[in-house]
Amino acid sequence: MTIIEPRVLKGFRDFPPAAEIGRRGLIEKIEASFRSFGFAPIDTPALEYAEILLGKGGGETEKQVYRFTDNGGRDVALRFDLTVPFARFIAGHRAEITLPFKRYHIAKVWRGENTQRGRYREFTQCDVDIVGSNSPASDFEILLVMRETLKAIGAGDVAIHLNHRGLFNRFLAALGLLDKSVDILRLVDKSAKVGRDAVVERLSVIAGDKAEKILQFIEAKGGFEDVLARLTELSGGSSPESERLAALRTYMLQNVSDGADAFTLDPSITRGLDYYTGIVYETFLNDMPEIGSICSGGRYDNLAGLYSKESVSGVGTSIGLDRLIAALEALGRLEQRASYARVAVSCLKEADAGAYQTIAGRFRDAGIACEVFFTEEKLTKQYMTAEKKGMQWLIVPSLDNPLRGKLTLRNLAARETSDPLSVEEAVLRLKAALEV
Amino acid sequence: MTIIEPRVLKGFRDFPPAAEIGRRGLIEKIEASFRSFGFAPIDTPALEYAEILLGKGGGETEKQVYRFTDNGGRDVALRFDLTVPFARFIAGHRAEITLPFKRYHIAKVWRGENTQRGRYREFTQCDVDIVGSNSPASDFEILLVMRETLKAIGAGDVAIHLNHRGLFNRFLAALGLLDKSVDILRLVDKSAKVGRDAVVERLSVIAGDKAEKILQFIEAKGGFEDVLARLTELSGGSSPESERLAALRTYMLQNVSDGADAFTLDPSITRGLDYYTGIVYETFLNDMPEIGSICSGGRYDNLAGLYSKESVSGVGTSIGLDRLIAALEALGRLEQRASYARVAVSCLKEADAGAYQTIAGRFRDAGIACEVFFTEEKLTKQYMTAEKKGMQWLIVPSLDNPLRGKLTLRNLAARETSDPLSVEEAVLRLKAALEV
Repeated sequence: MTIIEPRVLKGFRDFPPAAEIGRRGLIEKIEASFRSFGFAPIDTPALEYAEILLGKGGGETEKQVYRFTDNGGRDVALRFDLTVPFARFIAGHRAEITLPFKRYHIAKVWRGENTQRGRYREFTQCDVDIVGSNSPASDFEILLVMRETLKAIGAGDVAIHLNHRGLFNRFLAALGLLDKSVDILRLVDKSAKVGRDAVVERLSVIAGDKAEKILQFIEAKGGFEDVLARLTELSGGSSPESERLAALRTYMLQNVSDGADAFTLDPSITRGLDYYTGIVYETFLNDMPEIGSICSGGRYDNLAGLYSKESVSGVGTSIGLDRLIAALEALGRLEQRASYARVAVSCLKEADAGAYQTIAGRFRDAGIACEVFFTEEKLTKQYMTAEKKGMQWLIVPSLDNPLRGKLTLRNLAARETSDPLSVEEAVLRLKAALEV
Repeated sequence: MTIIEPRVLKGFRDFPPAAEIGRRGLIEKIEASFRSFGFAPIDTPALEYAEILLGKGGGETEKQVYRFTDNGGRDVALRFDLTVPFARFIAGHRAEITLPFKRYHIAKVWRGENTQRGRYREFTQCDVDIVGSNSPASDFEILLVMRETLKAIGAGDVAIHLNHRGLFNRFLAALGLLDKSVDILRLVDKSAKVGRDAVVERLSVIAGDKAEKILQFIEAKGGFEDVLARLTELSGGSSPESERLAALRTYMLQNVSDGADAFTLDPSITRGLDYYTGIVYETFLNDMPEIGSICSGGRYDNLAGLYSKESVSGVGTSIGLDRLIAALEALGRLEQRASYARVAVSCLKEADAGAYQTIAGRFRDAGIACEVFFTEEKLTKQYMTAEKKGMQWLIVPSLDNPLRGKLTLRNLAARETSDPLSVEEAVLRLKAALEV
């Protein structure tokens, strides 16, 4: 018979146990953080009508989407983000939802991207959004969720750079350049990549002698209050946008537990051509800023406009799990183990396998994950197997009477065997040793 | 602008918070049970080369698969189960894997099935397998995992019906009918659906006057030992297959904690035309047997044969999450709530939103999920909002000095407000009340 090569598609990955245990541990911590703020999970289909996902159509997105005709002749596509399905969800479930609605969604998305830049075609997003509140208090909550979640997973301190797109537009309007805001935003968003000189040159084409003024705006640097004062002045004085930023600053200072240092007002952050209309932000790890923003988002005016006449505004953020994993791996902060079990019951007689499972069940009931070895082998060989599997303890039952006789505990690292113990004593001993 | 109707594809579903919280709670309990036995998670791509997934090709499966040509001209398909990707995984990662290898995989799969029978086109499977051990001890572990996992999720007592396909084949060989085993297996598997008379009639066409004998075999009923004795006799005396069943019976009796009642030797279980070669089993809820088998599987000789020359045998099972959810819902045993938070901080002054988050953070740090209300409203209105959201407690901060003043706790069900408390006192009070 011909053997089929067991390959996976380019840009797609298997996660063997050691990688998947680290990945799942990370997701569980992120979920716990989202839940602690009162966000509730939703799930939506991986496959949707292409019309729903691509609504406005055209552009880069469409080229990258996995789109096809199903067996029923429907034009369908795999989701390429979690925001579009969320917008469709809000419109479709509006009657059941009480606003403000706080949801999280952690799931895979698919894009047929160029894989050369270390990008994947299947990757995981962790999205959190608050819809139906326009309060700056909800903007602030999203900023806090980002900071606290990244702290909870051991990513260390973060620098959250935020800006207000409405304030930038107000500034452009004051210069008479509002109709060119899309081109200008696109340029500003690329400034980190192409360098200042190139930006000046291209800005001059669009904005003439106002190019320098635009650069003054996006290059404003310093403490939050100083930058805010400068942007307020450049945009023609106090406005709802500058006042919202001032309110956020007040909240930061009230949130004394960690100080307000994590937050920088950075007018160069624009989030390109995204659908954001209010505050926008990007988040960098202080221990590895070079990996780029690992969590970004902003406020949008009308999320579900494609699917509903009702306007629902919101604010949200998305953690790119794969970039975060790459960073944590490089920092040596990702859990690395191939099993959850650190304890196993050895096999002295294969005929007693049921009794060994009974013993293991007592440890499992006490919250200790416990394997059972299946094969009758020399005990020294079983010590080695257990160590190779990353186990810390091997339970050695009574040879003659596994169910009622005493057992011993082998500490694999210390190479020590305990005195004979009852199962109850052994459970207590391991609970203490493993801090279960 | 034209509004796009926010619909989902037939056979696909959204999971709003109340449904998703129940679903996630169930998955978490299943995972905890799998982990407690020492199974480790893996993940594989949703999309694979069609050649990999459909290897042998043809048949019902192929018609149901979501298969298409991607933008790079590759013939690809969405996975329709977790077993085929696992076989490909084993072949591809054989060098890194130590046998026996115990993995679990909980993930969505896609089949363009007829949705009329309450089937979904996107559904979740929970698979657990042990590969690289041929010991009956590993068969027994899978049987135990099924029983213990279903107990852990509150599905109640189960009836696990098991059989050995090899023993049935040995019996057919004794009758000189081994070459017709596929047709006979297919018939036996359908007997519950078409009725005894129809089976007798069709069996007679295939097996002539031996039809009655076949029915004697598949209809053998009684205690495990009695049925085993009967099947052993009918299949020509003791054999490796009958001895394996006898070993499993010994293990069941040794596993005294729950008795051996959950297990029935049922020769009518054959698992149709699946790839199983050894024991096979189906599992029914004693409280709702009519919903059908919610967990089934068996032992296979050569899982990865399509992708590798090395033969790797294994044993495994798969829980159909959606059928299980339907059963638990009908039994009223599925968690039903729309949020994880049972506590919120009320909003007395929107300008103090940062301080409210600081207070909430103290509760979150203590393991109490805690929302913060964004909008300044009458307190009585906030009580109502909180109750509507399923909250049990509302934290009312000091109006004048939220960060350093005392707060009160409103018990929403009892309609009682506490004396003024420090944050520390309030945290302790709620930890006790919520048993966190």
